[in-house]
Amino acid sequence: MARTDGRSDEALRAIRITRGFQEWPAGSVLVEFGKTKVLCAASVQDGVPRWRAGSGKGWVTAEYAMLPSATHTRGDRESIKGRVGGRTHEISRLIGRSLRACIDLSALGENTINIDCDVIQADGGTRTAAITGAYVALADAITWLGAAGKLADPKPLSCSIAAVSVGVVDGRVRLDLPYEEDSRAEVDMNVVATDAGTLVEVQGTGEGATFARSTLDRMLDVALAGCAQLSRLQAEVLAEPYPGELPSGAKA
Amino acid sequence: MARTDGRSDEALRAIRITRGFQEWPAGSVLVEFGKTKVLCAASVQDGVPRWRAGSGKGWVTAEYAMLPSATHTRGDRESIKGRVGGRTHEISRLIGRSLRACIDLSALGENTINIDCDVIQADGGTRTAAITGAYVALADAITWLGAAGKLADPKPLSCSIAAVSVGVVDGRVRLDLPYEEDSRAEVDMNVVATDAGTLVEVQGTGEGATFARSTLDRMLDVALAGCAQLSRLQAEVLAEPYPGELPSGAKA
Amino acid sequence: MARTDGRSDEALRAIRITRGFQEWPAGSVLVEFGKTKVLCAASVQDGVPRWRAGSGKGWVTAEYAMLPSATHTRGDRESIKGRVGGRTHEISRLIGRSLRACIDLSALGENTINIDCDVIQADGGTRTAAITGAYVALADAITWLGAAGKLADPKPLSCSIAAVSVGVVDGRVRLDLPYEEDSRAEVDMNVVATDAGTLVEVQGTGEGATFARSTLDRMLDVALAGCAQLSRLQAEVLAEPYPGELPSGAKA
Amino acid sequence: MARTDGRSDEALRAIRITRGFQEWPAGSVLVEFGKTKVLCAASVQDGVPRWRAGSGKGWVTAEYAMLPSATHTRGDRESIKGRVGGRTHEISRLIGRSLRACIDLSALGENTINIDCDVIQADGGTRTAAITGAYVALADAITWLGAAGKLADPKPLSCSIAAVSVGVVDGRVRLDLPYEEDSRAEVDMNVVATDAGTLVEVQGTGEGATFARSTLDRMLDVALAGCAQLSRLQAEVLAEPYPGELPSGAKA
Amino acid sequence: MARTDGRSDEALRAIRITRGFQEWPAGSVLVEFGKTKVLCAASVQDGVPRWRAGSGKGWVTAEYAMLPSATHTRGDRESIKGRVGGRTHEISRLIGRSLRACIDLSALGENTINIDCDVIQADGGTRTAAITGAYVALADAITWLGAAGKLADPKPLSCSIAAVSVGVVDGRVRLDLPYEEDSRAEVDMNVVATDAGTLVEVQGTGEGATFARSTLDRMLDVALAGCAQLSRLQAEVLAEPYPGELPSGAKA
Amino acid sequence: MARTDGRSDEALRAIRITRGFQEWPAGSVLVEFGKTKVLCAASVQDGVPRWRAGSGKGWVTAEYAMLPSATHTRGDRESIKGRVGGRTHEISRLIGRSLRACIDLSALGENTINIDCDVIQADGGTRTAAITGAYVALADAITWLGAAGKLADPKPLSCSIAAVSVGVVDGRVRLDLPYEEDSRAEVDMNVVATDAGTLVEVQGTGEGATFARSTLDRMLDVALAGCAQLSRLQAEVLAEPYPGELPSGAKA
Repeated sequence: MARTDGRSDEALRAIRITRGFQEWPAGSVLVEFGKTKVLCAASVQDGVPRWRAGSGKGWVTAEYAMLPSATHTRGDRESIKGRVGGRTHEISRLIGRSLRACIDLSALGENTINIDCDVIQADGGTRTAAITGAYVALADAITWLGAAGKLADPKPLSCSIAAVSVGVVDGRVRLDLPYEEDSRAEVDMNVVATDAGTLVEVQGTGEGATFARSTLDRMLDVALAGCAQLSRLQAEVLAEPYPGELPSGAKA
Repeated sequence: MARTDGRSDEALRAIRITRGFQEWPAGSVLVEFGKTKVLCAASVQDGVPRWRAGSGKGWVTAEYAMLPSATHTRGDRESIKGRVGGRTHEISRLIGRSLRACIDLSALGENTINIDCDVIQADGGTRTAAITGAYVALADAITWLGAAGKLADPKPLSCSIAAVSVGVVDGRVRLDLPYEEDSRAEVDMNVVATDAGTLVEVQGTGEGATFARSTLDRMLDVALAGCAQLSRLQAEVLAEPYPGELPSGAKA
Repeated sequence: MARTDGRSDEALRAIRITRGFQEWPAGSVLVEFGKTKVLCAASVQDGVPRWRAGSGKGWVTAEYAMLPSATHTRGDRESIKGRVGGRTHEISRLIGRSLRACIDLSALGENTINIDCDVIQADGGTRTAAITGAYVALADAITWLGAAGKLADPKPLSCSIAAVSVGVVDGRVRLDLPYEEDSRAEVDMNVVATDAGTLVEVQGTGEGATFARSTLDRMLDVALAGCAQLSRLQAEVLAEPYPGELPSGAKA
Repeated sequence: MARTDGRSDEALRAIRITRGFQEWPAGSVLVEFGKTKVLCAASVQDGVPRWRAGSGKGWVTAEYAMLPSATHTRGDRESIKGRVGGRTHEISRLIGRSLRACIDLSALGENTINIDCDVIQADGGTRTAAITGAYVALADAITWLGAAGKLADPKPLSCSIAAVSVGVVDGRVRLDLPYEEDSRAEVDMNVVATDAGTLVEVQGTGEGATFARSTLDRMLDVALAGCAQLSRLQAEVLAEPYPGELPSGAKA
Repeated sequence: MARTDGRSDEALRAIRITRGFQEWPAGSVLVEFGKTKVLCAASVQDGVPRWRAGSGKGWVTAEYAMLPSATHTRGDRESIKGRVGGRTHEISRLIGRSLRACIDLSALGENTINIDCDVIQADGGTRTAAITGAYVALADAITWLGAAGKLADPKPLSCSIAAVSVGVVDGRVRLDLPYEEDSRAEVDMNVVATDAGTLVEVQGTGEGATFARSTLDRMLDVALAGCAQLSRLQAEVLAEPYPGELPSGAKA
Repeated sequence: MARTDGRSDEALRAIRITRGFQEWPAGSVLVEFGKTKVLCAASVQDGVPRWRAGSGKGWVTAEYAMLPSATHTRGDRESIKGRVGGRTHEISRLIGRSLRACIDLSALGENTINIDCDVIQADGGTRTAAITGAYVALADAITWLGAAGKLADPKPLSCSIAAVSVGVVDGRVRLDLPYEEDSRAEVDMNVVATDAGTLVEVQGTGEGATFARSTLDRMLDVALAGCAQLSRLQAEVLAEPYPGELPSGAKA
């Protein structure tokens, strides 16, 4: 009844967050949840989408995608199919919405931060790893914008955002499912939370099954504890200086 | 602090479920949650999608769409834009997943039930109305398939499925939000549940805000009570005979 | 040799025109020609297409579509296919062109009226029903624009527009063909005419067959008589007051 | 009140039909109506569209397109826009339908004839020129199929097909409108007819205007006389031998 | 070991360049390399692409396409497929790039010259024929712009551009390959050169094979000699007056 | 006149080739040419494209793409634009063609190797880095296929393939251009060669400029020396054992 990788039911996989993975974006983070690896890049762009122009406020948006080579079986490339699939759309929207919960968009002025989350290797939990890494990339982009003198308010981030998956596998509530568990889970839930322990997004699903309210409560307990751990890890890596050159030329 | 339409915080809008709205589909239901009107049609098709062929099992899938004229301000037509938007994709997937929780797909044989949910008039809660109506259309399609002698198991539906929205508006937890409340809700949640009171899907979101665990718990209480009411309504309307001609030629 | 539904060769099906079918568009009409049901909504939008900007004149355009569940066998959804089919394009263009024959576009100022004709149930003659209903929706939208003080000329409609199909079935010229007759007609013609008895559009087709000039003449006689009847029905329903709230707040 | 090019109201422009314009298609015809030039190519392909497979019958279909350089002002390329426009769709369907009126599709066996009508230079009446030229290309493709021993019936063409435009310009009914007249015509009609004088398709339109039944009758008289002349020209050019090498290696 | 058409290894096919092939474009040239026929039209358009606006410079761009009927076996129409294929993209870019090597874009002002190269008949070497014809169409468009008083510098063309293919077939280096040789060539190269003998573009490919440096050198020798011949032909045809009416109304 | 990074004109940047970068593909290589980083993954798939089915031969194809975050200024995502751009198409075709020059496709049986080249960071020369890395990924995939017993011939690779860019910058011929040099090069050439020193592909371009034959010769000399160095590096890294688990379970 033990997990394939020997973890306890409530333990996260090995988490690694590497800042400064790419040279050009204002924030670039490689996040690893076990074998799941997602590259999260936050790029700053002048201006905002048309529907928001003239508001004086900025915008944060995200695009999630998977490299064809990231999965056990090679996936088709969405650019070649000419259509972005429903799952991709859904996750992109989730990431953008989650990050917008922690930021005061009026502090950005009419600038946009695009967060690209490209999955390099997929082994379950790619969307929650993406959110967790994207927050760190966003924080670096905010540091970059501050150094560039483009922030109306020097501290536009009101909290940090982390996310984790939880599910019922073999009748047990387990944290941070790898693909092997995810693919046979009876219930699957993604929880996005702040470092203050409040919730940003909860999505619980029982494909081909239903679940009791008490199971939901138990999954939330386990997921919130996981998010708290991830928040601490984020704070630790962000305690290090900005990993590149800042617009002013001085290291932060 | 009262609601615009005078309802109590925990009350549903006026709900109407009309079976047999169209002539040709095996199930066709017009569902109304107040001014929100969704036409849910369940059509039976021989065969299953390619990835499922040869499994001996059937499939249930859904497509959600909005008439351009359904909204306060006319929306663009997705066929003309040439792309289905992320929101449409997301809701279509949610409806399909929710309905598959109540059905034994092996009883269908290699047949597909397509459930089209077309919003005729939108006033908040279109996805939850769609799920609630779609279940009734599905039940009628199952009756039709039974009469046609195409079911391996005469009772493939293990439970009924209903859905409702709940949110925090003006600091109060409220059930079944119309557009006017939905558009200024701090937190918004959709709950899909069975007539047995178990959960199928929970999606809670705080765009630009976060919410406490205790708020989530309270929203679930209110939503589950709302779903229970909807389940009773579904049972009532389904107690009436099948609203058209069955394959055998006799009324059910 | 009698028609399936017992009608005489020159009789219309039962026609019903229901105004105010939806809440939000300026004009919203459900038109029924027997079992054929089309929802025609006229929405007013500020501005005109780019190629017309600066002309000081308005525009009227139409989009026709069929719900997947409207037909005997479920049709594919054009938004999912990512392309609008040739038939859809052709009918949308016909409806827009027909309505522009009755209106003085300079009276509208630089406003656009979009007419959405969505087929709820198809049983032959959907394009002619759509034109007939769309005229009524357009008339209501004009009333709405007048009440909103947006018309340069208070009577921009110079005539009314109605349409009907006629064909040769079983060697006989018959009016207003249902699907069962339409699908085996040797010749099929759609005629759009004004209440003054002049012609707007004539489209006669013999797929896999040809027809004599004398047959064309006879079909025109029958169709024009049908259009005259439809024009009288339109006038009757439009004699009733505007079915919603007008911009000024007073019923028209 | 005379026409720009000095013709009488009921005269055709100079018509030229050149067979064997290209090497590879079974039929290839350059048709010229004055300055309007359309290349009509009929290519034979094994097999039929999926919906027709197993019927034992063949299929004839057409695709109409305009070179970007064909018009007074360069047009956008539809392949680059990624969508075929409504006008293109409409004309392609008209050409295919018109040609299918003259052929016994069961004589073809399960073969398809694709007729490509590419406008090299546009000066009004491209669709009617296309139909007139396409018939000649089709006739050559039939000769080719006969030589190849692929016809069940050696004479599958029951008549010839020609088409011409007619309109009301400056208050006068005129035949075969060039662009300069077409663009200011009050009424515009396209007539497709056989060499026996029967009708295949009639499409009369009054954009922004309406017309009397008597005008329609007069336009039909003029158009039918024009079609008769075109039919004679087609017969003359087809009296010459097949303009290339036939499958058997012998000139026809 | 002789070539099918009796030419020597280093000889071009019969080359024909016909100016003024169409009425409306500023330059319109039919170029023939043996049976390969390409229609090259240069159209002048006010303004430049958005990324170039405000630069004060003009732009030259090209679009290459093939008529479905141009090839031995009919090809699918890219507008219908809804996507421009990789080969089409590649050749369009090559033609545009090649022509931009000979022109001073600042002399054009903010005007664009679109060069459409539509293959009427394909028998190998369509891209090199297209470049060779496109240069002549461009030169005519420049004459037209000069007559219209739109050129800042009366001689913006610094050289002429021609192109030819060369390959290794049956172990021999051969010039200007027809389809029959091209399809079995071991190495295939396209060379674009100026009348001064300098190079603009060199693309050598060995699909499924490799080639020695000495072979490349030999192919370049042969190709440059071919280009020199084509440059002389271009100069000869351009020595004739402009083949239409110039904006000033006088023949050039 | 020295290069920004201090290299001599004929020196490569620092080259790094890391095998086994991802877990699931049969070959996965991260290749670095200075700051340019490309992830090359070779995935094995049963079956071949339809046009090749039944030939008994395999297929090798490539897809090149750039992460939006890879460039100095964030690029748009092609999946969202719904179209693959011309440059992407062109490079994908080049990579596939280059690799097919070194492999005996009949040894693969009817299997396909898809090579995905995703640019993680772009600093000039991404296509040549991609080819160089793709060859190593292909070699690993071949080892994997051999271990799986799927090769008809145990040594289907007849040579190795490497590629490098060369250009004229500041009037000097320079090897392996970074973005800063590439963007202002007068001439730009990509050379693909084998370890035997033969050529696979040569593409030289002078956008807005032309170049002498002698310059081309000099560029070829420099590029071939660069390719020879890259071939030696490839051989070195491939001398190490296969970096993962082989189908047989034993390390190669």
